[in-house]
Amino acid sequence: MSQFWSDIVHKLTPYVPGEQPKLENLVKLNTNENPYGPSPKVIEALKLEAADSLRLYPDPNSDALKVAIAKVHQLNVNQVFVGNGSDEVLAHVFQALLKHSRPLLFPDITYSFYPVYCGLYDIEYQTIPLAEDFTFNVEDYQQPNGGIIFPNPNAPTGIPLALVDIESLLKKNTQSVVVIDEAYVDFGTDSAVSLINTYPNLLVVHTLSKARSLAGLRVGYALGHADLIEALIRVKDSFNSYPIDRFASAGAIAAMQDVAYFEETCRKVITTREVLIQNLTQLGFEVLPSGANFIFAKHNAKHGAEISAALREKSIIVRHFKMPSRISDYMRITIGTNAQTEQLVKALKEILNTSVVSLKA
Amino acid sequence: MSQFWSDIVHKLTPYVPGEQPKLENLVKLNTNENPYGPSPKVIEALKLEAADSLRLYPDPNSDALKVAIAKVHQLNVNQVFVGNGSDEVLAHVFQALLKHSRPLLFPDITYSFYPVYCGLYDIEYQTIPLAEDFTFNVEDYQQPNGGIIFPNPNAPTGIPLALVDIESLLKKNTQSVVVIDEAYVDFGTDSAVSLINTYPNLLVVHTLSKARSLAGLRVGYALGHADLIEALIRVKDSFNSYPIDRFASAGAIAAMQDVAYFEETCRKVITTREVLIQNLTQLGFEVLPSGANFIFAKHNAKHGAEISAALREKSIIVRHFKMPSRISDYMRITIGTNAQTEQLVKALKEILNTSVVSLKA
Repeated sequence: MSQFWSDIVHKLTPYVPGEQPKLENLVKLNTNENPYGPSPKVIEALKLEAADSLRLYPDPNSDALKVAIAKVHQLNVNQVFVGNGSDEVLAHVFQALLKHSRPLLFPDITYSFYPVYCGLYDIEYQTIPLAEDFTFNVEDYQQPNGGIIFPNPNAPTGIPLALVDIESLLKKNTQSVVVIDEAYVDFGTDSAVSLINTYPNLLVVHTLSKARSLAGLRVGYALGHADLIEALIRVKDSFNSYPIDRFASAGAIAAMQDVAYFEETCRKVITTREVLIQNLTQLGFEVLPSGANFIFAKHNAKHGAEISAALREKSIIVRHFKMPSRISDYMRITIGTNAQTEQLVKALKEILNTSVVSLKA
Repeated sequence: MSQFWSDIVHKLTPYVPGEQPKLENLVKLNTNENPYGPSPKVIEALKLEAADSLRLYPDPNSDALKVAIAKVHQLNVNQVFVGNGSDEVLAHVFQALLKHSRPLLFPDITYSFYPVYCGLYDIEYQTIPLAEDFTFNVEDYQQPNGGIIFPNPNAPTGIPLALVDIESLLKKNTQSVVVIDEAYVDFGTDSAVSLINTYPNLLVVHTLSKARSLAGLRVGYALGHADLIEALIRVKDSFNSYPIDRFASAGAIAAMQDVAYFEETCRKVITTREVLIQNLTQLGFEVLPSGANFIFAKHNAKHGAEISAALREKSIIVRHFKMPSRISDYMRITIGTNAQTEQLVKALKEILNTSVVSLKA
């Protein structure tokens, strides 16, 4: 605390990201990174950027990157906004489009950065409880609001919402912006991008950190009607002229262009996920349906906190959320390679056997 | 305009950065980039980052980069904040430290992003006129305020303020934060970093875009008392967990460590600047004193707008500011290589001769 702080700083409760451990040789299944590296074409493009041209500013508008993204999604360039990771994109979205006199709505169990953004921009919000089984009911959002935001698939549950439900929501909610945060959409969830040209209040946010294996490069984007994009550009141009550096731009363009590599990587992750779910079910876990590159699971006998601590002792890290209590028994486990998944299952068998023994003792 | 925009968006007047032309072979003297590329050690470090490890998030706290910066400035790591270019750092500074019930003070002629940040965060401000000769008088800032910010050397004038004047300001202004934006300090202006351990309300902002030749990489930092840095970290962690990508971190660390290359580059730029000032003076320009990698000059007979348009026809671009009117006759010219400077002087001779001829005709 300090007299020099602006008022808002005293009230902030910052977001706490998953641990990025500095130890090597961990099986890192805690922050939903892709187990496969980026496309070889991305690596080649990036090497070319390590040059004297770094003395020059990048394109402030990232036009070439917007063209590459627009092409993949069959949209116009003025329907694309890019930022320094989808977290930055979301920050601008909250400030530019979600601050109104009525409260913003989002699920009670969701990406925990949303209430943090509301704190940063002094946005009133109301959380809407998910159903008992953690599913999302669009009927619950039929009330006056200043905007609606949710991830699809949801985080940290991984549960996908069907496109027909999203369209039903959009048909009824026409007077405020609906933001769908599709960070994990490429792992088997239907994207709402196809609805953008029908609903001018729909904004879809994507990241290159997950399906395109570029968490280390920091690129995300938003897609929507040109009027929504213009609001984001105005805020961006009042915040930082050049958010996308030369590497981020070159790597992201190459990643968007290599569609075959992207599709193959997603397929591999989905296949491994289904094998992991079978294994966990056999070990006594209840696993929620997942359309993401992670699963959300709880064991029928042992607490999530206990299991994740035991995994850590075996150099495997997964994510456990202490609150809210409805999810405190669950662990969020990122889908790794097949080898990492085998290692995880082996470790879980050891931990759960030990547990049975210790209960009898 | 759109019903979906937050109120603040309607009121924004975004910053307009200097042009980043997509044409090759221009002599680009308009955005104060370094004419020399980054250190070869930086290039080597960057090449290593083009790897599979890009699938992983970077360190959210950029600890290794903070250590490298702290070492150069002989400060503690908790006195360092890093961001995606100094523009992002400044944005967080405005939100975290400069929004108070009393107005923020800055010069009437200065970095034109400052009033834009005030618009973005709804901060009341008051501009203080520079003297007739564009010098900065610290006495003018002795009035109740919610903060003071100015660049040293000032932009776009390039005029440096002596350290003794800065200390005099700090002695009298102890109840609000004083931010000194030292983007251009390494080209012959005294830094206020040496005062940080004496004045807990002093924050100094640096960039790697100018003296360290990394405009394309987007890294800036702030130095100050740990309490001021904590406010910036709180805002950053409520905005974007991972603003510094893996390339930005690795390149910036290598750049901070190669002190010899940095010093040599700055010396070369300063030498060329002095030669350019002599040449321009002989051509009838009045050149303001410069402690930066650019000069601010006006001709005794021809308007800045006219000269800069004529230079553009010769593929040389400099920056001309239309407002405010006190500076409308000036051009801001970045210091290039010796060869670029010769080309500029040659072009100016041609333009000014033509002008004399056309006046006689």
